[in-house]
Order: sequence, then C-alpha cells, then structure tokens
Amino acid sequence: MTDTDPGLIALDWGTSAQRAWLLDTRGRVLDARRPDSGLLATTEGIDTRDPRARAAAYEAAFRRACGDWLTTHPGLPAIACGMVGSAQGWVDTGYHTVPTTLDFTALVPVTHRDGVLHLVPGLRLPSGDTPGDVIRGEETQLVGILDVLGDPGEPFTVVLPGTHSKWVRIDGGAVTGFATAMSGELYGLLTAHGILARTAAEPVRDDAAFARGLAAGRRSRGLAAELFGARPLVLDGALEPGSLPDYLSGVLIGDEVANLSSASDTRVVLCGTADLCRRYAAALADRGVEAAVLTEEVTARGLWRIAAAAGLLRPQDKERLERTPKP
Amino acid sequence: MTDTDPGLIALDWGTSAQRAWLLDTRGRVLDARRPDSGLLATTEGIDTRDPRARAAAYEAAFRRACGDWLTTHPGLPAIACGMVGSAQGWVDTGYHTVPTTLDFTALVPVTHRDGVLHLVPGLRLPSGDTPGDVIRGEETQLVGILDVLGDPGEPFTVVLPGTHSKWVRIDGGAVTGFATAMSGELYGLLTAHGILARTAAEPVRDDAAFARGLAAGRRSRGLAAELFGARPLVLDGALEPGSLPDYLSGVLIGDEVANLSSASDTRVVLCGTADLCRRYAAALADRGVEAAVLTEEVTARGLWRIAAAAGLLRPQDKERLERTPKP
Repeated sequence: MTDTDPGLIALDWGTSAQRAWLLDTRGRVLDARRPDSGLLATTEGIDTRDPRARAAAYEAAFRRACGDWLTTHPGLPAIACGMVGSAQGWVDTGYHTVPTTLDFTALVPVTHRDGVLHLVPGLRLPSGDTPGDVIRGEETQLVGILDVLGDPGEPFTVVLPGTHSKWVRIDGGAVTGFATAMSGELYGLLTAHGILARTAAEPVRDDAAFARGLAAGRRSRGLAAELFGARPLVLDGALEPGSLPDYLSGVLIGDEVANLSSASDTRVVLCGTADLCRRYAAALADRGVEAAVLTEEVTARGLWRIAAAAGLLRPQDKERLERTPKP
Repeated sequence: MTDTDPGLIALDWGTSAQRAWLLDTRGRVLDARRPDSGLLATTEGIDTRDPRARAAAYEAAFRRACGDWLTTHPGLPAIACGMVGSAQGWVDTGYHTVPTTLDFTALVPVTHRDGVLHLVPGLRLPSGDTPGDVIRGEETQLVGILDVLGDPGEPFTVVLPGTHSKWVRIDGGAVTGFATAMSGELYGLLTAHGILARTAAEPVRDDAAFARGLAAGRRSRGLAAELFGARPLVLDGALEPGSLPDYLSGVLIGDEVANLSSASDTRVVLCGTADLCRRYAAALADRGVEAAVLTEEVTARGLWRIAAAAGLLRPQDKERLERTPKP
C-alpha cells in the first residue's frame, strides 16, 4: 500500500449540498466532487416517515455520488457527516450532548449493497436559560480545525460564518457551548424578497458601506431598526442603491458579533469562505479582537481524522468491510 | 348646510393600499371604501421619472377611487396623506423637519379636472447619531390621535405597530423624534420564505408560545440568534410547528420593545389593529409600562382635522374650489 492508495471515501452531506472526496491513506485529496443530492433533493417525493423508502433513496443518492469509486476500489471504507444523520436522513445518528469531547470513535453504520457507510453523530446543547440547539456537520469541521491548529491549551471560540453562523466555545479539546445566528439567512431574505430589495440596482462591493453598516449594527437600536435605517439613507442619497447589500451585511454581522462575542473572546478562529471571514474579522477587530482565519477545507480533514480514530482505515477494517455480505 | 352634508373627501394613499372616506361637515364618516390603487398599482408600467405621465396616472386613480363622490358633490374639498406626496407620488410635498409641531396649514395643492386635491407633507428626522428617517401618512395618524386624546401635558410615546412600526416621541404637541423598526416585514419574510417556514403546519394562535418568544426577545442574544432558536425548539418537540409564527412574533416584538422603548416611556399610546396592539401591550407590560390602546380609525379624523385647520372646510373655500377652471 503506497501513500497515494485510496484510503477513504468521505462525504459532507448537508440539507441542500453534498460534497464527496476520495482520500488517500494519509488523508490527502485524490479526487473531489460536488454531487447535487443534498437531503432535500434526495428525499424529494419520498414519504420520509417510511424508513425503507428513505434508505432506498439515500442508497441511490450515495451510489450516484460515488458509486464509481466503490466499483474501482471495492471495500473502501466510507464516512459521512451532516444532515444525512438526522431524523430525516438515512438513519438518525443522535447527538453527543455538550459539554463533550470531540471523540467520535462510535460511528453509526448503515449497510448498503457494497458495504457500510459510517455516519458521524451531531452535537446537542440541552435547553437551559436559552433554547437548546443542535449542529450536524460542524462537529466534523471542528475536528478538522483542531487537527490543523492543534489545541492552543486555553479556551477559544470558533466562528463558522454562513447561512446559519455557529459560535462554538472550545476548552481543552471539548465543546463547552455553542450558539447559532441566522444572519446569513436574514441577509438572503432581505436582499431577495424584502422592500429594501426594491431599490433595484446592481450590487457593487462597497467596503465603506459595509463599515458604516458595522457601526450601525454595533451601536444597534435593535436589528429591526438598524436594517430599516438603510432605506432613508438611500432615499436621502447618502447611500448608493448598489451599496445596500454591503450595508445590510455590515448591520447584520455587526449586530451578531456585538451580541455573540463575549469579553472572554481573546482567541477567535474564523473558518469559512474568504469573503465572509474578512467581514467577521473586521467586525471582531472593531471590538479589539484579532481573529485567526482559516479558509481551507477542513471538513475532509475532519472526516479523515474521525475515520482514523474510529479504526476505519486499518487494513483489518478494510478486510472486514470486504466481507460484508451483499443483500 | 346640515350636519350630514358631505364636507370633505379624505384619502389615505399609501404604497400598497388606499382608503377613501366621504366625511360630513363635522368629520363623521358618511361613506368609506378601500380602492385598490396604492402607489405601486397606480404607477405600474409608468415611467415615474416623467411628471406628466405620473400626474395622469394619479389623476386616473383618484377618479377611480372617488370620482363618483366628486360628480355627486361638485367642488367638494379633497385631502390626501401618505406616499401620494412622495417623490414617486403625484407631486413631492417634501417634509417638515423634526422637531416640529403637527401644524399642516400649508398643504400642497395638485389641480385635477374637477378641482384641487390637497396633500399633507411628511415628517423628516435629519441624520445625526443615527441615520435619518422619514414618515408619510403617520403624521396624519398622530394628528388624529392627539385629537382623540387631547394633549396629556407631558411627553409621551406613540407606537404605531405594522410592517414598519413607528415609535414617535411627542412633547407639547410637537414631534421631537421617531424611529422605525421593520419587525413586521421580518416576520412576513421569515414565515413566507424562511427555512423556519418549511416546518409546514397550519398556524394556530398560541399565546403561551408568543409569551415564550417575548421572553427570548427580551433576554436577547441578538435577533438573529433568538429567531433561529425557534428551530431547535420545534425539532425537540418543545414547540408545536403551528405555534412557530406566534413564537417568532414574540421574539421580534420583544426585541423591538427592549431596544426602542426607553426608561422615560411612562406614557405610551398604541394605535393599530387590535391584534398587534395586544401583542405590543403585552411586551410593554413585561417592562412595567401600561399602554393606552387606540384601535379606532384615526387617519380619517386626522385628515379632517388638518383640512379644518387649513381652512378647506369653510364655505368660501368650497366656492373657490368650484370656480377652479376646468382644463
């Protein structure tokens, strides 16, 4: 077995998107693709209350996504994280309850015609002073981030910006808490369907407008008032219509950072697209917090690390998988 | 001239809606209707940069709304408030700059085939520490509210809940400041297009869910986080899917009231639909503020009061209007 031998099929299988990697025995990417079978596409037209119908739909989607890799490399171990392990997924993997270490040695296997796919459980924050919350897929990103950074030896916060941004507190390799903000979704709703979107203009990048929005979000008379504030600015000619999206982005991120960052956030790691990381880093810098930015792909790395810790990569596991009876 | 003689045609002409009243010489409603020519419908397909095309469209819409009243009662004075006086309206009436008394004796006349329609200017808050803001139509509601209540002799706050709620500070009959929150629009976007809306269920009224939302909005880790909080509650079975709209309404109103009410708000008047007033009153009561609620129609009353103050109702005005040459 050489370093470039395929060692693992890894999938990030979310609600609307799916990504698949063929990794070598050391976790390096040999092949990568973005199949179009997220959870919504996979279960379209299926009665999701029927476990058999669901399993059949997921197995077909799994085969479409990476059946050729399985055919070429029979018995290759496979792992997946994300909504595929939810109640509407292939099987419900349940959750590890926070506070918890990021230790996923007990994966949830689902058997398919050519072997076994191992699913990563999510994390669950029980209800308390605030409503509970769950994450699926981000736990694997966190494993990847810790693998890249090493444990800094002191508590830190990971921010994963996106449609639903996650703020995760980590201490000694364990997740001690997290929160979700739907700023990205609100941005999408406002710019696609809102009254502000009627100020029709081709959006232009406007860093100054973003900074003004940040200041408004930080000062905040509340999000509902500061978002509306963009409208009189445009009517007054004080904001170009094309700069409205960047202003709204600033208000939303400024408000989110003001509310969810805490005085103890001296170490913050941002992980996401370069554009979103830049915006969150600016908002954090406004509060005197310098964030480390990680824009590389950490999910594949996390999946490989979890698979290795769970023993999926050992030759005996591979042999065991090859002996899995075909249905 | 008897009390029940028609004395005034009054219009509330907004962006998406239009209301028209035939009032007697003492301001009582003889007839009322809801024509369907708001600003958007009126200007559809028109180049709004062309003042003549715009004027023709508005005159046609005015005639559709109440041409029969003008035919039956030639020379009847007419007044309108709302977006009809905006830059995209019939003519731009401009604004009175806050702080300002609610004194609209100088109305802006537009001539049409059968006479003159008098438009009420809006109010403008100049930019300062916060972005500026404008209102159109609400100034007339305020006149109506003051007419109903009388001046209480001390500063008070009027809250006009709606798609874009207004919080107006009034002192000695003058408007000293105002703010707008788009909580109602956010509610509409989230329940019509948001991911939360995918939790498909027939909405049911759930006062307890609203109260829980209020508490979350008051505690607020920020609107973007508290709104998202509804999702894990539903997934956990801790909130019925049909109760989601009332929970979101609570979060939005709780956050708005926490942000926009101030310690000096000992006197608050709520004016709007009974359902929205009930919700805002509950949020204010949570903060120890008892609000007076006014659910009656105050816009027609405000229009009549402004018309009277501007001298439109005097017989000589009526005669003058009847002598207006026809084009």
